[in-house]
Amino acid sequence: MGESLRVALAGLGTVGAGVIKLLDENRELIERRAGRPIEITAVSARDRSRDRGVDLSPFAWEDDPDALAARDDVDVVAELIGGADGPALNLARGTLNAGKSFVTANKAMIAHHGLELAAAAEKANVALKYEAAVAGGIPVIKGLREGAAANAITSVYGILNGTCNFILTEMEAKGSDFAEVLADAQALGYAEADPTFDIDGVDAAHKLAILASLAFGTELDFDSVATSGIRQVIAEDIVEARALGFKVRLVGTAERHGSKLFQRVHCCLVPRTHPLAHVAGSLNAVVAQGNYVGRLFFEGPGAGEGPTASAVVADLIDVARGEYGPAFAMPFARLSETGPADAGDRRGRAYLRFAVHDRPGVLADITAAMRDANVSIESMIQRSGADPSEDSDDVVSLIMVTHEGPERCVTDALDRLRGSQSLAGEPMLMHILDL
Amino acid sequence: MGESLRVALAGLGTVGAGVIKLLDENRELIERRAGRPIEITAVSARDRSRDRGVDLSPFAWEDDPDALAARDDVDVVAELIGGADGPALNLARGTLNAGKSFVTANKAMIAHHGLELAAAAEKANVALKYEAAVAGGIPVIKGLREGAAANAITSVYGILNGTCNFILTEMEAKGSDFAEVLADAQALGYAEADPTFDIDGVDAAHKLAILASLAFGTELDFDSVATSGIRQVIAEDIVEARALGFKVRLVGTAERHGSKLFQRVHCCLVPRTHPLAHVAGSLNAVVAQGNYVGRLFFEGPGAGEGPTASAVVADLIDVARGEYGPAFAMPFARLSETGPADAGDRRGRAYLRFAVHDRPGVLADITAAMRDANVSIESMIQRSGADPSEDSDDVVSLIMVTHEGPERCVTDALDRLRGSQSLAGEPMLMHILDL
Repeated sequence: MGESLRVALAGLGTVGAGVIKLLDENRELIERRAGRPIEITAVSARDRSRDRGVDLSPFAWEDDPDALAARDDVDVVAELIGGADGPALNLARGTLNAGKSFVTANKAMIAHHGLELAAAAEKANVALKYEAAVAGGIPVIKGLREGAAANAITSVYGILNGTCNFILTEMEAKGSDFAEVLADAQALGYAEADPTFDIDGVDAAHKLAILASLAFGTELDFDSVATSGIRQVIAEDIVEARALGFKVRLVGTAERHGSKLFQRVHCCLVPRTHPLAHVAGSLNAVVAQGNYVGRLFFEGPGAGEGPTASAVVADLIDVARGEYGPAFAMPFARLSETGPADAGDRRGRAYLRFAVHDRPGVLADITAAMRDANVSIESMIQRSGADPSEDSDDVVSLIMVTHEGPERCVTDALDRLRGSQSLAGEPMLMHILDL
Repeated sequence: MGESLRVALAGLGTVGAGVIKLLDENRELIERRAGRPIEITAVSARDRSRDRGVDLSPFAWEDDPDALAARDDVDVVAELIGGADGPALNLARGTLNAGKSFVTANKAMIAHHGLELAAAAEKANVALKYEAAVAGGIPVIKGLREGAAANAITSVYGILNGTCNFILTEMEAKGSDFAEVLADAQALGYAEADPTFDIDGVDAAHKLAILASLAFGTELDFDSVATSGIRQVIAEDIVEARALGFKVRLVGTAERHGSKLFQRVHCCLVPRTHPLAHVAGSLNAVVAQGNYVGRLFFEGPGAGEGPTASAVVADLIDVARGEYGPAFAMPFARLSETGPADAGDRRGRAYLRFAVHDRPGVLADITAAMRDANVSIESMIQRSGADPSEDSDDVVSLIMVTHEGPERCVTDALDRLRGSQSLAGEPMLMHILDL
């Protein structure tokens, strides 16, 4: 049995407490697998007195997380504070500069500063690990970095935010609208009081940028992720999508287009036969398409105490085993520079919902714009208004699915319709996942 | 850039040719990811003259595979010969004893001799890697060995044979019987001329024994895998299962029961809501249930040139990176001894189909046997015979789903019915996957 790997934990929220419980409960098994014991020696958090349901008395306490990196009884720091900058980033820099390994669940920090931190880890010849930052307990960082490493990856995409997937599948099950389900989810603790990062797609975009770098061997480029969320989805979209053979999912997609990268987080229509269509509730799932392996699909719990702790401790086991290397699968200096691909060139089908006034000429206006923009329509549904006895200025929905074509044509059609008297609201556009 | 990792390939069938193509096509990417080039230097196969669609002229040729291990220009041997014993095993022993790393796609050899080979690899401080041996291109060995390493695994199970899954899903799609679909599959090259290892569950059992050892930290115990295949499944089973809300799948299941191991390959009824129900065609899928992470699900291509080559080269990349350790996740001496759990103690529901003579008293006989064995019936279907105008000695099907109970009770009921005049054939038993 080797010497213990001595771990400092920074941040004692749900995940931090989970790591403490896991290392205690699975101690014997982990020691066999890691080849040596993994022991927490020191911890730091904002509030020393809070009851976290775990006994902190065996561990040294530091009020200042930065002090953890300097301790003689610490080999590796696990950061569970969160936030792209501030204390988490200070601690990451301090730990790596002190020549110690660093494990984190912090997607925002890796998405924004991963390259700098990877360089620091390489310089110090230590590990920088972040399995818990993407898709919680699913070992997808390892799956791309190592499992699929023999492949040129053509696309990587998935359901990367459990809160959004929970809301969309609840809307599907109950026929409710977004605002209603969000309120329920907040009451149940499935969504944060301020859910912006989740429901506007930012959290998914952080994870997507990380997956893209790993998959394609390109520098992290979070700023180029075109990001939108699920606020605009209404119950009707889900019903119509279902009638057309699709489920509505918030999907992050990254594709290599020559030397450029296409990265987008967007609501998509997923064909019922695609594995992502069966991902329900707060689960996450990632698909990687490789030029030799074909389509790999990983699914599991994307957040929460147990799954996130599982991923953090898996990283610690890799560190204990000495089985680690460059954070982004290759030395940071060999990651390619890239830039955003022009989404307009990308080909695909699209779902469009127009809220229109129910009066003569409206359909002609919209179909003319489609024709002028070279968009060909595969199917169209117009439902009569909810109450036909009301006056003729009722607003009704017009739903279209386009044939495959360049995305710029659909954008162009929507531009042509901007300000049109026929429209009673913003059109809803969702791309169809034909991967 | 480091020195090349020099690879010898033994066996130049489909997978061997795939490895050569992959290393050539993805050369630049692999060199960036592995930190150094991976080069084939020598090859061996039975027939030097056969056209494999790849250029062998850059490689040294050895008629005797054993000679590969002794070559000065070889760091690692990749074995793609197959077979539990014979040349493959000789080569494995020779390579590890020569202090060189060994990569294999050979599930039969690992299932039978994995422990001996793991010991030899540890003694020589080299790698023994076998990602391609289980579930083809899906990185499930890595997923268990490393990704889920923080967890006590309670069960690991999955669809481990693509030929069987192809046949079952074809039967489902076409309503055909087993023999018919098997003949089609053989004509199309999806099933071997001698399909025994696949359709009788032996191939899946090899893979299951390997997964169980990794998941539970127990010694390999292939001999204890209770194994059956898909020959007894008839079209009617699939139709009735569907009506009850299930799909029929050949599932390998391993569970830890105290210090004992339950391992079985068996046709199961999988609830439509379970991810395994959506695994179609020749895909493979593996589920691992961990005490912290919850349920992880991996799906992908389980065989074939590209996926298998992808897994072999992923192993070579780990070797090139120096990121490897004990073959079964922990030093072989720390794997627990175990023995087979008594399946009779295992609780679950079961599907039973009886071919019965359509005459008075039959139902009473069968239900009495169930009662006497303490089996409680959840649902029962009796369909009238195909042609009611025929005489009353028609054979009809009686289908039951039992309530959850110890498996020994169902076995006992079937024992009581053995030789009964009411039965017109062997009863069909499938367990229901309620995991």
